[in-house]
Amino acid sequence: MIIQLRPHTDPARVQAMAELLDAIIVRQNGHSLLLTTSKLKTLAPEIREEAEAVFVMETDIQLASAQYQRKKREVKIGDLVIGGETNHTLMITGPCAVETESQIDSVASFAHSMGVKVLRAGSYKPRTSPYSFQGLGLEGLQLLAKMRDKYGLKIITEVKDATHVDAVIEYADIIQVGAKAMYDQGTLRACGRARKPVLIKRGFGSTLQEFVQAAEFVLSGGNEEVMLCERGIRTFETKTRFTLDLCGVAYLKEHTNLPVILDPSHAMGYRYGVSDLARACTAMGVDGLLIETHPDPDRAWSDASQQLNFEEFKALYESLHSVAAAVGRKIV
Amino acid sequence: MIIQLRPHTDPARVQAMAELLDAIIVRQNGHSLLLTTSKLKTLAPEIREEAEAVFVMETDIQLASAQYQRKKREVKIGDLVIGGETNHTLMITGPCAVETESQIDSVASFAHSMGVKVLRAGSYKPRTSPYSFQGLGLEGLQLLAKMRDKYGLKIITEVKDATHVDAVIEYADIIQVGAKAMYDQGTLRACGRARKPVLIKRGFGSTLQEFVQAAEFVLSGGNEEVMLCERGIRTFETKTRFTLDLCGVAYLKEHTNLPVILDPSHAMGYRYGVSDLARACTAMGVDGLLIETHPDPDRAWSDASQQLNFEEFKALYESLHSVAAAVGRKIV
Amino acid sequence: MIIQLRPHTDPARVQAMAELLDAIIVRQNGHSLLLTTSKLKTLAPEIREEAEAVFVMETDIQLASAQYQRKKREVKIGDLVIGGETNHTLMITGPCAVETESQIDSVASFAHSMGVKVLRAGSYKPRTSPYSFQGLGLEGLQLLAKMRDKYGLKIITEVKDATHVDAVIEYADIIQVGAKAMYDQGTLRACGRARKPVLIKRGFGSTLQEFVQAAEFVLSGGNEEVMLCERGIRTFETKTRFTLDLCGVAYLKEHTNLPVILDPSHAMGYRYGVSDLARACTAMGVDGLLIETHPDPDRAWSDASQQLNFEEFKALYESLHSVAAAVGRKIV
Amino acid sequence: MIIQLRPHTDPARVQAMAELLDAIIVRQNGHSLLLTTSKLKTLAPEIREEAEAVFVMETDIQLASAQYQRKKREVKIGDLVIGGETNHTLMITGPCAVETESQIDSVASFAHSMGVKVLRAGSYKPRTSPYSFQGLGLEGLQLLAKMRDKYGLKIITEVKDATHVDAVIEYADIIQVGAKAMYDQGTLRACGRARKPVLIKRGFGSTLQEFVQAAEFVLSGGNEEVMLCERGIRTFETKTRFTLDLCGVAYLKEHTNLPVILDPSHAMGYRYGVSDLARACTAMGVDGLLIETHPDPDRAWSDASQQLNFEEFKALYESLHSVAAAVGRKIV
Repeated sequence: MIIQLRPHTDPARVQAMAELLDAIIVRQNGHSLLLTTSKLKTLAPEIREEAEAVFVMETDIQLASAQYQRKKREVKIGDLVIGGETNHTLMITGPCAVETESQIDSVASFAHSMGVKVLRAGSYKPRTSPYSFQGLGLEGLQLLAKMRDKYGLKIITEVKDATHVDAVIEYADIIQVGAKAMYDQGTLRACGRARKPVLIKRGFGSTLQEFVQAAEFVLSGGNEEVMLCERGIRTFETKTRFTLDLCGVAYLKEHTNLPVILDPSHAMGYRYGVSDLARACTAMGVDGLLIETHPDPDRAWSDASQQLNFEEFKALYESLHSVAAAVGRKIV
Repeated sequence: MIIQLRPHTDPARVQAMAELLDAIIVRQNGHSLLLTTSKLKTLAPEIREEAEAVFVMETDIQLASAQYQRKKREVKIGDLVIGGETNHTLMITGPCAVETESQIDSVASFAHSMGVKVLRAGSYKPRTSPYSFQGLGLEGLQLLAKMRDKYGLKIITEVKDATHVDAVIEYADIIQVGAKAMYDQGTLRACGRARKPVLIKRGFGSTLQEFVQAAEFVLSGGNEEVMLCERGIRTFETKTRFTLDLCGVAYLKEHTNLPVILDPSHAMGYRYGVSDLARACTAMGVDGLLIETHPDPDRAWSDASQQLNFEEFKALYESLHSVAAAVGRKIV
Repeated sequence: MIIQLRPHTDPARVQAMAELLDAIIVRQNGHSLLLTTSKLKTLAPEIREEAEAVFVMETDIQLASAQYQRKKREVKIGDLVIGGETNHTLMITGPCAVETESQIDSVASFAHSMGVKVLRAGSYKPRTSPYSFQGLGLEGLQLLAKMRDKYGLKIITEVKDATHVDAVIEYADIIQVGAKAMYDQGTLRACGRARKPVLIKRGFGSTLQEFVQAAEFVLSGGNEEVMLCERGIRTFETKTRFTLDLCGVAYLKEHTNLPVILDPSHAMGYRYGVSDLARACTAMGVDGLLIETHPDPDRAWSDASQQLNFEEFKALYESLHSVAAAVGRKIV
Repeated sequence: MIIQLRPHTDPARVQAMAELLDAIIVRQNGHSLLLTTSKLKTLAPEIREEAEAVFVMETDIQLASAQYQRKKREVKIGDLVIGGETNHTLMITGPCAVETESQIDSVASFAHSMGVKVLRAGSYKPRTSPYSFQGLGLEGLQLLAKMRDKYGLKIITEVKDATHVDAVIEYADIIQVGAKAMYDQGTLRACGRARKPVLIKRGFGSTLQEFVQAAEFVLSGGNEEVMLCERGIRTFETKTRFTLDLCGVAYLKEHTNLPVILDPSHAMGYRYGVSDLARACTAMGVDGLLIETHPDPDRAWSDASQQLNFEEFKALYESLHSVAAAVGRKIV
């Protein structure tokens, strides 16, 4: 249940009610909200009368739900805005991982020249093998910060576990919670306390319910700027790396108030399908795209098969403007 | 292996070689082809020299493969053509099932008025319960034939098992092999002998490999007019009915030579996502769409939750033209 | 709803009520039953008073449900009995396919010498490729009949589609509905009319609900002797061929009244795990096992990797008796 | 590649070779091992000659593989030993979560009275909703330690993310890496440095390859005492909570050298199937079982539907001894 208290309710009273209801207190839009389990369906009259509005919820998708707030939330990345009524589709591109300064500079320079505003690259790589390249760590974050300064790009980079979440929060413009960290409450709670936008990738074995509930951890921690990122789920089909769940995206658009970003690169796992999928996502009216690009994909240290080269990205990027226009949207 | 024999090879010799190699003989483009298991990798010299071309294949996706023929096959439904170099995206619409004459006439009349050329409706319904509506059977086929005569529409309707495949072949303009019949060789072989286009729906638990191999049954039976239809696979996600596999569609476009039709209605299972998904499919450059429409979806005898009403279909249909144009295609 | 009518209800009245309720009529245990959709929850008083008992059901799992009949159904294969209160676990073994007379005779002779009573082998193989061995067809059925005469074994063999269901019904002692034919109503309805036990394999992409509803097609057709066979479902895991769903078996034991047979060979796909899994299934208290055995597995024409050789089968078979005894059961 | 160096190789030389090969150094059985990516297939002669043995590996399952060491690893939990040649099946039981002192004392006392040696209970619960009970945290760990002192039980409890891994390592006798933390390298690396046995639960969306590679993180960190725990994977089937993957267990037994523990409670999700599944697992010859037990399951604060009450556990536990004996094993 979401209990929106009257403005100026005495803080001690707010605290007392929260304890009574085993509720989380969060401030949103100038109100104190009390958030309880959705199993709570009725309120005692003395609490009810302190409330300006009460939302009885079906499931623990609460702050993120369209039932609570139909209007899509806005997320601001500096002067860039997505969600709300903007009809913006944000392009984010960059390599799987920061490898060297010249590699990341090459991509950053290219992205900048194309008019792309946000650069992605991982520095803490959630590899499943201890014997693979694990990312450059802090050094990679510093290189990304350098690219921000040099090209005026915003930076998005991934947290893979709670040991380095503070470093990522410090360096990134958008904190990416990796698919393998989607259930990591240490990380999610740290993001809830952060004052930066958070993009949560869906775990490839995670239901939509769990996915949106991961966003609830961040929202109920006090950070309202959360984006969801669908990047493919694991199914029986192995000809492609994962299965991009656009039915799920339709569900998220209908039932939540969060901007939705799509990552066709990881879903497909092969260069050849990425552009077609990116156009499909754009025609669905999503709020952003995350496309892996590398100066020389065949020599990439990770995800070699799925990253576009600059020429491929350029062709894709140009085609997206007309697809976006056909559905009343704009690529930013 | 596909062994394309020289023109005018003596039929007795063709037969003898087929027996020797345990091969299927098929005539395509004026040639006799011998089709063997893909495990066969080399030929005896005396057979080799009768061949104009030999295709050593990796898997039993052979006639359907881009390796054998990169150019996409054309399929003709009367004077309608899709595939090849047409850049056509065919719209097919209609209700889940024929229920009554007035119901199917209402849809047929509406489809005709919109400029849609192909009407879909099931008459043998592959319900999973013996206690549900099972379709009108032959009576439904006759009603569909009546609509064809009245409105000049082409008819597509589903075979659910081999007991009624001959009736469907007789009445339909396009024979739809239902998802639950995708492995039914009795049905596939009958389609291979038919002289009408066949649309094969992917089983919701079927791999892409098996899906295309179902097409091989029809192609190797001598029928070259085969279309594949992706309609959602079964995954762990249950908020939507199935998961539309657009990564798989990218695979089919890259690795096969068959037109690909998309059915977002069955994948989604809910009215609200169908239009967004249909636009996404169109932007991917698919060869056709199958959209369920019903005069009064809430009262439909089956699939009530996913069928569009006329107003919804009209809004969707109009929006598709500009999406198609944005990717250089045309809705037909 | 299951409406059990009073004995001696006038047949014309039965027929009239069935038409009124859109119900299927079936005779069981000397009673006429009217079977309607489970959506029907209440009856008109004039029909209610003709009923001896009325079962309001939650889903279309009706005749097969523990709610309708808690006691497990008995199935008789000649003088062999399983289910009911027998605590019997039936061993069925044999090769994937009948290949030659000497091959099937070798297995039949071996099975007979071990005390196994039921021989399995396919003659119509539901291969996914048209270029693979498709089975011997009628000739294979005749060879199986010869083995029955020679060794006194019961025969189980598979229907893959409706085109040959009558031949299988004629030759087999147990009709096996193959996993790929589980939704094939032409086949299921023919089995409903047959007077022989039916074993239905679960489709690898089929839910438990759909699986049991396939049994409802046979039961509501008037054939009470139905067994369910779990043989592995398709999941994201590819190190093994399928995933044997023993949680599902626990569900079937709790919620249905049908004997459950397990096929670990197809689930595993590799010889090495079959014996361990067969012991696991036995300890779960299942009603039977289907184990693939071949005189020379490496040279088998199909499923080469998963068939046990005679020595492996012998070791397994001997170990099963003590496992069965540990849970109060007996291998027959 | 695993390069087992000669004893007494100069540490500086070991270091130099590790740097050259980008290898991890680990000490096992008195040897220094260099561990490189499995992509490395050949060695320069000057390194080759320092090696006593070289294992060229197919995949990054290296230290855990049967190819490297066929004999199953032993794990010691105090004076309890499993794995190796012990034929022991370890029983672990306890509630989902520590709720109160009286609740945990009740279970501990019961377990002790039954002869069970290891008590399980979570204190940091990886709930998917921020609005559910999250566990008692440190207080719960302290209660578990108290039970250890009072009843002489060993304690296993779960890490859900890296923020509290040190606390769990300090208090537990066996560190349980939760299914949702299986990819959490911060946690896995901390376990690699710990001197206590580690039990890794398989992520419900994780392949066997990834699962065993999680163990490689711990093994290559220098901790040899690792157990794998299969607890059900997520599939399309929703009648049960998860699908226990016994085919996968057969794979792990054949291809790895790690003890395998089974958790049928989480797989099933319902009390009714747990005992049958536990007997099945035992008959497969697994190294341990994890069974949830609660003094009053219906009032449990989490996982209420799947925990056994004491009477059910007692009946199960007694039946397991004869099943274990039937396959030459002993419950400890």
